[in-house]
Amino acid sequence: MMDKKETLEKYERAKRNGKVDKDIIPLLEKINSLHNFYTTSSCSGRIVLLNIPEVGDKKGAKFLCKWHREADKKELLECLKKYKENYLFFIMQSPIIHIVASNLEWADEMMKIALSCGFKYTSIKKVENKKILVEVLSTENLHIPIARDGKIMVDDEQLTFFLEMANKLLVRAKSKLKCLEEKISYLLSSS
Amino acid sequence: MMDKKETLEKYERAKRNGKVDKDIIPLLEKINSLHNFYTTSSCSGRIVLLNIPEVGDKKGAKFLCKWHREADKKELLECLKKYKENYLFFIMQSPIIHIVASNLEWADEMMKIALSCGFKYTSIKKVENKKILVEVLSTENLHIPIARDGKIMVDDEQLTFFLEMANKLLVRAKSKLKCLEEKISYLLSSS
Repeated sequence: MMDKKETLEKYERAKRNGKVDKDIIPLLEKINSLHNFYTTSSCSGRIVLLNIPEVGDKKGAKFLCKWHREADKKELLECLKKYKENYLFFIMQSPIIHIVASNLEWADEMMKIALSCGFKYTSIKKVENKKILVEVLSTENLHIPIARDGKIMVDDEQLTFFLEMANKLLVRAKSKLKCLEEKISYLLSSS
Repeated sequence: MMDKKETLEKYERAKRNGKVDKDIIPLLEKINSLHNFYTTSSCSGRIVLLNIPEVGDKKGAKFLCKWHREADKKELLECLKKYKENYLFFIMQSPIIHIVASNLEWADEMMKIALSCGFKYTSIKKVENKKILVEVLSTENLHIPIARDGKIMVDDEQLTFFLEMANKLLVRAKSKLKCLEEKISYLLSSS
């Protein structure tokens, strides 16, 4: 794992290039102000259309569209026009934050905070030297195959149903970020 | 976390009552033969129909049917007859094994073995005293809302499409268990 200085320089470059989701920036900067933690990557939650050559083949997967906010039907239909071949998945993903902790005790502390805010899929993903990589993740997700071999398999009513569900789940999942930000602020003020 | 003796007694009772998936028993017993590990719960991968009262409300969720193997269209349609109200999700889940390791180093060793067999979502879920709970998990999953308010929102062709995909993913995910069993056997023979 990279060290904090190097990682934060990379983060600042990404931010300048508009590559960090805006609605997660205040939270990331608070975490990075903590002595025992730094973030390495993140996503504030999203709805995507993902083209997958073969079932299970994530390597060859390509994004057709990504929305880090509620999407509307019109833009979904517009995006579908780009679909030509392979499988197409309609996916909703929870916010995800990768945080390096300086040791196991701090990692455990961060996991407990995240769990208390409803990020129930939070876990430790990697152990390297004494550093620990915590993944903050919530349970909201959709993973729906909607097309294969160039043929859309769902109709207009079903797309609306899936999109409404995805938007609802995205709002629910993103709302947990606020709780995390508040608890990190408390940690900052008491440190 | 419970200790090894108590956990294995509970496992033996569950096995006698047919509550442990048969195709995962040899693997579990090999892991439990290792000095530094024991399993606390597991599922060999499954396809389920899950009734959910409100979006995100996993607490009130009820299984309509579960299959720990490939399911066929006839039994899926039969199961759908039981659906009356709320949301209904068609879900495919990867095998999952919860393993307690006696310390962080052994947990890391088990994570690396699982990752090398393709269980890419493997992580540490909990830290308690010095014991570490590893969750072995793969990436295959489907999470598809197929009905709401008593109305099935997908037609016959789409159900077939989803079921074929689920069966394919289930076979792919389960095949990774064999690799894990072989690597654990090697660990056993070299310990």
